[in-house]
Amino acid sequence: MRNFESDNTSGASPEILDAVARVNAGSAASYGADEVTAGLAARFADVFEHDVTVFPVATGTAANALSLASLCPPYGVIYCHREAHVSVHECGAPEFYTGGAKLGLLDGAAGKITPEALAEALAAVWRGSEHMTQPAALSLTQASEFGAVYTVDELAALCDFAHAQGLRVHMDGARFANALAHLGCAPADITWRAGIDVLSFGATKNGAMAAEAVVFFDPELADGFLYRRKRGGHLISKMRFLSVQLEAYLEDGLWLRNAARANALAARLAAGLAALPGVTLDAPVEANMIFAWLPAALVEALVADGFRFHVMGADGARQRVRLVVSFNTEEAAVDAFLAALGRHAGGAQAAG
Amino acid sequence: MRNFESDNTSGASPEILDAVARVNAGSAASYGADEVTAGLAARFADVFEHDVTVFPVATGTAANALSLASLCPPYGVIYCHREAHVSVHECGAPEFYTGGAKLGLLDGAAGKITPEALAEALAAVWRGSEHMTQPAALSLTQASEFGAVYTVDELAALCDFAHAQGLRVHMDGARFANALAHLGCAPADITWRAGIDVLSFGATKNGAMAAEAVVFFDPELADGFLYRRKRGGHLISKMRFLSVQLEAYLEDGLWLRNAARANALAARLAAGLAALPGVTLDAPVEANMIFAWLPAALVEALVADGFRFHVMGADGARQRVRLVVSFNTEEAAVDAFLAALGRHAGGAQAAG
Amino acid sequence: MRNFESDNTSGASPEILDAVARVNAGSAASYGADEVTAGLAARFADVFEHDVTVFPVATGTAANALSLASLCPPYGVIYCHREAHVSVHECGAPEFYTGGAKLGLLDGAAGKITPEALAEALAAVWRGSEHMTQPAALSLTQASEFGAVYTVDELAALCDFAHAQGLRVHMDGARFANALAHLGCAPADITWRAGIDVLSFGATKNGAMAAEAVVFFDPELADGFLYRRKRGGHLISKMRFLSVQLEAYLEDGLWLRNAARANALAARLAAGLAALPGVTLDAPVEANMIFAWLPAALVEALVADGFRFHVMGADGARQRVRLVVSFNTEEAAVDAFLAALGRHAGGAQAAG
Amino acid sequence: MRNFESDNTSGASPEILDAVARVNAGSAASYGADEVTAGLAARFADVFEHDVTVFPVATGTAANALSLASLCPPYGVIYCHREAHVSVHECGAPEFYTGGAKLGLLDGAAGKITPEALAEALAAVWRGSEHMTQPAALSLTQASEFGAVYTVDELAALCDFAHAQGLRVHMDGARFANALAHLGCAPADITWRAGIDVLSFGATKNGAMAAEAVVFFDPELADGFLYRRKRGGHLISKMRFLSVQLEAYLEDGLWLRNAARANALAARLAAGLAALPGVTLDAPVEANMIFAWLPAALVEALVADGFRFHVMGADGARQRVRLVVSFNTEEAAVDAFLAALGRHAGGAQAAG
Repeated sequence: MRNFESDNTSGASPEILDAVARVNAGSAASYGADEVTAGLAARFADVFEHDVTVFPVATGTAANALSLASLCPPYGVIYCHREAHVSVHECGAPEFYTGGAKLGLLDGAAGKITPEALAEALAAVWRGSEHMTQPAALSLTQASEFGAVYTVDELAALCDFAHAQGLRVHMDGARFANALAHLGCAPADITWRAGIDVLSFGATKNGAMAAEAVVFFDPELADGFLYRRKRGGHLISKMRFLSVQLEAYLEDGLWLRNAARANALAARLAAGLAALPGVTLDAPVEANMIFAWLPAALVEALVADGFRFHVMGADGARQRVRLVVSFNTEEAAVDAFLAALGRHAGGAQAAG
Repeated sequence: MRNFESDNTSGASPEILDAVARVNAGSAASYGADEVTAGLAARFADVFEHDVTVFPVATGTAANALSLASLCPPYGVIYCHREAHVSVHECGAPEFYTGGAKLGLLDGAAGKITPEALAEALAAVWRGSEHMTQPAALSLTQASEFGAVYTVDELAALCDFAHAQGLRVHMDGARFANALAHLGCAPADITWRAGIDVLSFGATKNGAMAAEAVVFFDPELADGFLYRRKRGGHLISKMRFLSVQLEAYLEDGLWLRNAARANALAARLAAGLAALPGVTLDAPVEANMIFAWLPAALVEALVADGFRFHVMGADGARQRVRLVVSFNTEEAAVDAFLAALGRHAGGAQAAG
Repeated sequence: MRNFESDNTSGASPEILDAVARVNAGSAASYGADEVTAGLAARFADVFEHDVTVFPVATGTAANALSLASLCPPYGVIYCHREAHVSVHECGAPEFYTGGAKLGLLDGAAGKITPEALAEALAAVWRGSEHMTQPAALSLTQASEFGAVYTVDELAALCDFAHAQGLRVHMDGARFANALAHLGCAPADITWRAGIDVLSFGATKNGAMAAEAVVFFDPELADGFLYRRKRGGHLISKMRFLSVQLEAYLEDGLWLRNAARANALAARLAAGLAALPGVTLDAPVEANMIFAWLPAALVEALVADGFRFHVMGADGARQRVRLVVSFNTEEAAVDAFLAALGRHAGGAQAAG
Repeated sequence: MRNFESDNTSGASPEILDAVARVNAGSAASYGADEVTAGLAARFADVFEHDVTVFPVATGTAANALSLASLCPPYGVIYCHREAHVSVHECGAPEFYTGGAKLGLLDGAAGKITPEALAEALAAVWRGSEHMTQPAALSLTQASEFGAVYTVDELAALCDFAHAQGLRVHMDGARFANALAHLGCAPADITWRAGIDVLSFGATKNGAMAAEAVVFFDPELADGFLYRRKRGGHLISKMRFLSVQLEAYLEDGLWLRNAARANALAARLAAGLAALPGVTLDAPVEANMIFAWLPAALVEALVADGFRFHVMGADGARQRVRLVVSFNTEEAAVDAFLAALGRHAGGAQAAG
């Protein structure tokens, strides 16, 4: 499996599939009234050291859009990175779920927003004027779309500023586990303790079949969420099959083991790439994704070797590539990639 | 398991769970570009003897609302039965996905709509006048919310009339297999041959974990569906886990076996009930659901016996109950229920 | 002008046109920051004996839809009469502005809702269940779509019940002045004192060119109204031309004089009709509208005489007609109509 | 009146007020079925030398948002200038009316878009991929938000490119008359002949009280417009009062006289400003608006003289100001401003 295209191409952790099979026995109350779902709040509260309101959904786009609709009125603005998934790759889901709110796009290195960028955007808004949509929320992606990770301090600074400006803060945690594994801190440190109000807690990319959780740290914000989820078609009737994925994901640290493994393999790949002449990493490799500029000849050679990854753009004789390591990427695939890099290094250097 | 509450409380067919486990091997393209998903169009075309465009989604509400949004503009009216799931139990999903269309509510025995009821509603509309929302679609539920089944002729008459009036026709087939098993006809007979334009093809209630398919018989109507599904948050990233449920569901007639079994058990229950003094069936029992008026004392006695079912209302000393049989309801549970009826018949008679 | 079709076919009161011409002098701050607009709050507060938040808009549909969007979330239900303008004749404006809420349709004589009808509808709702849209508001029309007027006590009873059930109450006052002129009470008596939370205060039908006001009696409910109005395209740039219509409308009792005049002429028409054999009034004539069943021959004769009015339906040899008297309907037209009735009485009787 | 704040602070042309008063006589069919409204299509067809479908509305925001909703599905993108009114100053009206479409923001000098900027934005879109909202429309503002005017060739180039890319083109013509007066060409030259599909034809800023017209050059695009307008609350009941403003506006060239006068006065102001040391015009002054950088001391002196205008920003010792000339700005006000510039020139130079 020489596939580094996406962490969505991997399957599910065996532990999670086993849990799904186990929960099939007998009957269970539908629509989330089952015991597994009921138990999730306590599990998440334990993980986050905080009372939480938890809503399982099947996709990250649903988690994000429903979260944002809880934070932003139709006439509001949600600030996010210009390359954020919610802006670029969800086909307008936030606009749909909020009833037509705007996304305010911010620039920032490696997919990370700074308080300065947010401040600059806010300075252009006439607060309280009906002529303009009004700032309502900030959405951060942790780990970022380019594989970088916000530090605890960065998050706290952003949330403090956003709150001072009257914004609520959402975290798109599609790769939350990878960020956490990188930082080695407590889940609370990069969520409510830093000031996050709502988290899209991702499990799908890191080992589940289709399971995400919207986690509210302030239960008042969850008002109306139940109805928005249902009318969005996201209330799963046999909910236990979804909830048990989250249960198994959190069980015995599976989620962190999976993420740490992917991060470590990504770091090995990154180190191998960075050592090559003519190669530049485009963002710090802190999670399970690598963005890098490679000589076109090297890209061609790797493709010829059967490696699969995304080419995101080109600039003269160099190409920008994205490699993603999944929780179950085989070590052998990484070894093979590194070996190939070694073989091609000379040619790459010549072409670089 | 003396549970007759819902076909959503049952688990999944072992064949479907096995297929899910099998598809986990290796990696697969994400977001529906995998081979299992690609194969669904041919499988459904085979089942329906017609070219179809098929979109898997995880919930029936999503299937219905996305279907209806393909048929009805924001200023349109979707006619449906007053008790239709899309009207009563989806928390406004059709209104949300259409951008604020109206549901026009029609009466009709046993949850079934007649051309006459539709004609009467249409007569009150000023066609082409901007003051009124305009008729756009008809949504039928097969089997109906009360367990009745439209015949082939009934469907054809309804679709013919609706088409003549410029409406498109959607079928909510949450229990499509149960209807089909009852009629013993071809799937085509109660869909495109009768005039159905779009079908919400349900699998969840009849053996899947969470899998429905939106089936378009006219591909032009599917324009924009991809985008609406994605912005609704209903594009599953590891789609093969969803698609394979549909594949297994259709494999070797599993879906029809499951439905026929549930129908047969429901028929046994219904016969037992109907034979009792003081009991009236509220709708023909043609699928896997029974709606009946029972003496309150009998209801009480059955509950005391540990049987679980929904009490939907009361009228003097009688209560209206709903019993639903699942694909995997144990024969023993039905036997026990019938035996209990026998034991309580005397008391019920006295109270009736 | 033998036209009894609508109070929208009349022009504007000269006093209002004069005020519009007067306000044209000089320049004025735009978008409602002008002095005329600023003065409206005090004028309305004076009229209603209560602090109010007032927003001028150009149409009744805008007033209603924006009001309702302030009271009802996208997943809410607004209860109204089955024949209410907001339901039948606004092409889904409430659904559009609320983001897809539902209208719950209630029956009731003469276009008036009773607490009993509301109670029955509420009894079918699972309060707090995500499967159903949730009751949020009640919308009453005063005078009703059929020309009847709620008494002070009727309004109080409805509002009390609605509030007890957690609903907010909106009044569609497109013909508010006509209702008030009929009752002879204070504006406060049929609004906030009775429990109305928001009023669509109509002026257009009763003498303005295009001017309505949304009047909030609880300023907290107006949160977000400014933004909804602007994004609905209803913030008029040269607002003084709109506001001055409302100012002139309220000046020296113009509004009540206009309404009283129309009511009185309508009463004369109604008395003339009711005295005829074969004629039945369909609703009490308490405002400026008459709904009546007439012998078809009489309808034909009146049309032949050049009278214009709406025929709403037929039942055998009788037709249901609507006659509307405007603030500036000529007395001579009413005299002529009554004279014609006298002439045709014999023929009508024969046909009746 | 030393007021250069906005062309919305001016009143209405006497010819238009007279027409409004005249149309008040007698009664007229409501909701646009009157003769004045019926005559608008022919008048606009005459002006534009092309069959057109015309819809009067009361505000520019309504005209724009309703137009864009006719061109763009909820999952579409409307490209416009980053500073376009539709993006910055309509509180999300396009998002609301389209059901949550996106605005794609383009840069460009003087508020004008280039085909290159559009091409660059389109290059980043995965056409046909459900992950991304899809390009649907281009919206141009003529004259631009900064008072510049697209030439005939510039428009043709933009429309040709947009059409080749599958986009429809909308023109926000809030100051269409000013642009036309500047170019001296036929209205057709900068609309359908250049490729414009829909025009928001503004009259309010240039002499009407509250009147705009949506002009479709391709009637098929107007499908559904009637319903969208009504459910937006923008169907005026006594429509003749709105339509007659447009009629009078076009009568005997009033619209072009008004615009030419404002343009000429703006040009005088601009020449006076440009001649001063330390003053830089920020955009070509081609319509009735001036954007310029002035020494802060000069701004202060002018304000002290009683001149009113908007200060849009500051950069060191210079301030960016906007001056707008209305159709009825007094010549004396312009003379006075120029005289004041002369007086302050020395001081400004010193400060500059």
